[in-house]
Amino acid sequence: MVNIGIIGVGRMGKIHLENLSRKIDGVHLVAAVNTGKEGQKFAHDLGVPNVSDDIGIILNNPKIDAVLISSPSDTHSTYAVKAAEAGKAVFCEKPIDKSLDKAKETVAAISALNVPLMIGFNQRFDTNFAKVKENISKGTIGDLRNLHIVSRDPQPPPISYIKKSGGLFKDMTIHDFDMARFIMGCEVVEVYASGNCLVDPAIGEAGDIDSATVLLKFENGVMATIENSRETKYGYDQRLEVFGSKGVIKVDNPLKSNVSIATESGSTLDRQLNFFIDRYETSYLEEIRVFVDALINKRPMPVTGEDGLRAMTIAEAANQSLQENRPVRVGKV
Amino acid sequence: MVNIGIIGVGRMGKIHLENLSRKIDGVHLVAAVNTGKEGQKFAHDLGVPNVSDDIGIILNNPKIDAVLISSPSDTHSTYAVKAAEAGKAVFCEKPIDKSLDKAKETVAAISALNVPLMIGFNQRFDTNFAKVKENISKGTIGDLRNLHIVSRDPQPPPISYIKKSGGLFKDMTIHDFDMARFIMGCEVVEVYASGNCLVDPAIGEAGDIDSATVLLKFENGVMATIENSRETKYGYDQRLEVFGSKGVIKVDNPLKSNVSIATESGSTLDRQLNFFIDRYETSYLEEIRVFVDALINKRPMPVTGEDGLRAMTIAEAANQSLQENRPVRVGKV
Amino acid sequence: MVNIGIIGVGRMGKIHLENLSRKIDGVHLVAAVNTGKEGQKFAHDLGVPNVSDDIGIILNNPKIDAVLISSPSDTHSTYAVKAAEAGKAVFCEKPIDKSLDKAKETVAAISALNVPLMIGFNQRFDTNFAKVKENISKGTIGDLRNLHIVSRDPQPPPISYIKKSGGLFKDMTIHDFDMARFIMGCEVVEVYASGNCLVDPAIGEAGDIDSATVLLKFENGVMATIENSRETKYGYDQRLEVFGSKGVIKVDNPLKSNVSIATESGSTLDRQLNFFIDRYETSYLEEIRVFVDALINKRPMPVTGEDGLRAMTIAEAANQSLQENRPVRVGKV
Amino acid sequence: MVNIGIIGVGRMGKIHLENLSRKIDGVHLVAAVNTGKEGQKFAHDLGVPNVSDDIGIILNNPKIDAVLISSPSDTHSTYAVKAAEAGKAVFCEKPIDKSLDKAKETVAAISALNVPLMIGFNQRFDTNFAKVKENISKGTIGDLRNLHIVSRDPQPPPISYIKKSGGLFKDMTIHDFDMARFIMGCEVVEVYASGNCLVDPAIGEAGDIDSATVLLKFENGVMATIENSRETKYGYDQRLEVFGSKGVIKVDNPLKSNVSIATESGSTLDRQLNFFIDRYETSYLEEIRVFVDALINKRPMPVTGEDGLRAMTIAEAANQSLQENRPVRVGKV
Repeated sequence: MVNIGIIGVGRMGKIHLENLSRKIDGVHLVAAVNTGKEGQKFAHDLGVPNVSDDIGIILNNPKIDAVLISSPSDTHSTYAVKAAEAGKAVFCEKPIDKSLDKAKETVAAISALNVPLMIGFNQRFDTNFAKVKENISKGTIGDLRNLHIVSRDPQPPPISYIKKSGGLFKDMTIHDFDMARFIMGCEVVEVYASGNCLVDPAIGEAGDIDSATVLLKFENGVMATIENSRETKYGYDQRLEVFGSKGVIKVDNPLKSNVSIATESGSTLDRQLNFFIDRYETSYLEEIRVFVDALINKRPMPVTGEDGLRAMTIAEAANQSLQENRPVRVGKV
Repeated sequence: MVNIGIIGVGRMGKIHLENLSRKIDGVHLVAAVNTGKEGQKFAHDLGVPNVSDDIGIILNNPKIDAVLISSPSDTHSTYAVKAAEAGKAVFCEKPIDKSLDKAKETVAAISALNVPLMIGFNQRFDTNFAKVKENISKGTIGDLRNLHIVSRDPQPPPISYIKKSGGLFKDMTIHDFDMARFIMGCEVVEVYASGNCLVDPAIGEAGDIDSATVLLKFENGVMATIENSRETKYGYDQRLEVFGSKGVIKVDNPLKSNVSIATESGSTLDRQLNFFIDRYETSYLEEIRVFVDALINKRPMPVTGEDGLRAMTIAEAANQSLQENRPVRVGKV
Repeated sequence: MVNIGIIGVGRMGKIHLENLSRKIDGVHLVAAVNTGKEGQKFAHDLGVPNVSDDIGIILNNPKIDAVLISSPSDTHSTYAVKAAEAGKAVFCEKPIDKSLDKAKETVAAISALNVPLMIGFNQRFDTNFAKVKENISKGTIGDLRNLHIVSRDPQPPPISYIKKSGGLFKDMTIHDFDMARFIMGCEVVEVYASGNCLVDPAIGEAGDIDSATVLLKFENGVMATIENSRETKYGYDQRLEVFGSKGVIKVDNPLKSNVSIATESGSTLDRQLNFFIDRYETSYLEEIRVFVDALINKRPMPVTGEDGLRAMTIAEAANQSLQENRPVRVGKV
Repeated sequence: MVNIGIIGVGRMGKIHLENLSRKIDGVHLVAAVNTGKEGQKFAHDLGVPNVSDDIGIILNNPKIDAVLISSPSDTHSTYAVKAAEAGKAVFCEKPIDKSLDKAKETVAAISALNVPLMIGFNQRFDTNFAKVKENISKGTIGDLRNLHIVSRDPQPPPISYIKKSGGLFKDMTIHDFDMARFIMGCEVVEVYASGNCLVDPAIGEAGDIDSATVLLKFENGVMATIENSRETKYGYDQRLEVFGSKGVIKVDNPLKSNVSIATESGSTLDRQLNFFIDRYETSYLEEIRVFVDALINKRPMPVTGEDGLRAMTIAEAANQSLQENRPVRVGKV
């Protein structure tokens, strides 16, 4: 039985709380820390025995084995290091920190403390993407020759969010950078990024882009393209296609139902799911299951601090590429 | 807040218990009754306050508003009447009773006691089928002209189950009979049923069939066909197609993932879901939600005792048709 | 090189003329006979050397090896026998004759003359259905357990046509009867047919039905269902599904294009093809190719006079079943 | 009636000959010129009245209105200018010339002679792509935001062909460059191209690449990506996806049949078509139809010399980008 404390009961924290308290075996949710009352009430209602705004109830509780950090992004690194210093295993939502340097320091510090660290790249645990990875590993499509990722949100976040987000590449594309590394099984060496404001000029005024096309070159010479947009009218769009010497694997979007209607104007399928909470629901459950399982069986973490840093360095290179309109080499980790 | 007691914590009962204890608002699961220890432990672990093998903890508890009956089929009618006599609303799994006469008596008795009664035809609450019904009601495909239902289980139940099941039509096709009535929105007047043993001769030796094709004639002259089999190699097969004057609506099977792989031999989609627990997971939740909602808002039950009896009379007519190889008129309810 | 004469240059005749004159190797179209000038001109324009309203140019030409009969239905049997008497191989459009007795006489007469006879059940030569047959023969889906055919025309023919058509079962369902025999590879022993007028009351006044559901029982105990309608709003609907012990094979409708458009209301595929001339275009070519090939290589005809008679006897049984509302045994051939 | 002469009866010439002689109204194929006997025989067999290895039978025939040039690529410009000088309208297969300078001279010369010139970018006339264009023009998906083209051949051509091909971008991607311009309806201003040898090292030794990812930036700021490969194991892969402010339009690959087979391992659709002759069969017919129609009705040509030059300049920029690993501005036409 793994005893867990959670820091941060916001949108993501609530998902983890529900999963931990109801759906995962071998785990006991001992404590929840949140600064606001609403998140504390949520934890109470789910029966979490210790709830407070004081992180001490987690750090000072010797029974707690692991800490799940889903607080605001700018607190991740501080809490992660504190938890590690208290000897707890750490599950930390991405990003470790918006500053690559600070993220590197954080990972180094935790690594020096020799506690397990997992980064919350949940999409790796989505049934679809996991099945793609499994088939690639089995050699179903032979040697990989190309990867194409489409990742489009249904609508842009508020401008206030955009301003604090670190920019499209660190906020949104970062998932696709991790997915590209996960699928290809090797490292990105060069990035050419292109983007602009096609959705909302206010995003441009806030210093960000809302549409991007990114080309990644991997160390094995294979290329990947990523297409991002902050808006679609047809629902959340999360697809992927890997082309190999023996075939091609595609992940298409799940639909709201399996109903189709044919009339005079053609045959219509149902809409895609709305957003990531519907689309990746089970992946959030699965990532925690795998984290707990790795703790229990003392196995290496499936998504490491290095994975978090790698995606960050690609995002940094993408930002530089966008500014200088040239391919940029990806930095070391 | 509706206080509920549950009788029977077997396969179906556990699904209801999980849904009631974790996933439905406005409901309090007060008591669970089960003869075996294993079901009792299951209820305990979920935090049900009162657990016993004595139905008295439900019948004699004045705080309990409603009883959910998911005990073995041959106990349904007894418990349903007792619960009604105790003034509780009743949610009863199908069938009310394998004997049509006894089922009629039971419905009449509960009706005379003026308590709400809902029958557990969960498939009506499946997202797909509900969307079909909604579109038919909106007139999307105009006047209905034909209905085709495919309903095939992945593998036959044990022969011991077959022997007690009441036969294919009452055990399996009964869901399709209800679905046909639900979709068409009018009554079946005649049945022509055909069937035999193509899957396992042992099923024939047990006096049942494992494959059937049934033709239903509705009071508006429209026809429906139902195809049943106790076995497929490709997963649980639950499809439906309604043809109308303006178009056609189809429900296809959900798949295990949205991954497709194209190689030299063509493009392969993932398998269908395994069985009803995966396929109808959300419909079990939704039917209870609707039951609770109807209780709270004092609305009529969406699936009535009459609905339960109607499906039974069609099954009886199908049995007679199969024996006499002729179309048979459906009896009164 | 096979020398061919064609009798009847109407809608079907023109299709055969184009195919024979341009698209099939090893064949020489020597003569075309048609009573009207328009059909004669059509043949002239395609370069047919001998064109006339006199059937003598075919019957008396010793160089002609085979005669293709695509004249009006009520002349089929007369021309077929005359051609056979002149020692020519015969390709005859269905039906041989609307009267089963006369059709039997015709087949017997041609058989006694020992000339090859092929009936134009073109759908057997459709790429899709041929591929289904091929897979069944290879055992891909194991033992057959059920067959479902959907066959719906986009709009009803004129009432004048309906009156002379011999009724829905002999005019339209006859293709499905043949397809069912072709796919199952064994004979139908019993028919239960049900139908009515849902499309146009004028069809009922003309003594016919426009909608039908037919249940066929095969000698191996397997059942098939056929769904017919004289009208759809979404294009020509020709589908088939065979269920077997190892899997299921489906034929879906070809679409006008492979374009799909996703917007707020879902994802829309293009319309189905309009009607049989588009849908079965290549099957008309293929059936003649196979006919010519059988002549050249002295192989048995792939669709025989008996096949024509079998489909007719099923249609007769269906008519009787519809009138008497009971399953009817299929007569001998 | 338009009188046409054809120069070059090779692989493409034969397709045009068949289409002109059998399938297009309002056109008379008067003469065919080919250096080899085999092509001459092909023209004879189709009934072309004048066949020779002497181009004079076309240039000196005052009745001939238009010349279709499908001879080897390095003869295109010479024949095109000669035909124009003889006052004939010109339909010329791509490329006008492998040298951009010579292609520019050729187009300028023909333009000065004031005769109509159409370039054979047949893919614009494919039903699928034409339907995409039509929907974009109607505003179905609003403002365009991204374009993605996948274009993969089933197997690489012989190395001898590769050596003379002008390289992947001029030989294969050129179709995609034209398609991108056609779909977007505006000009490409910058190209970033990336590519290497993943299929066959012999292609690299011949100085070419066999895999490429190209990013195009349009004057309206929108980006397009093109993915090319010289080899797939699953058939010819020609897809396209346009993303806009109101939705997304996709073109998927046509399949060999509409048969699907579900067994224990999932549901398998048929293979894609083999190669361009199957995939684009009707587009070759349609482009000639449109050419003839433009001549008859004195309308502007739908694909102009400028279109040919534009695609070439993009290919040149792609080559430079590949060599210098940086985005390159597209030159003027």
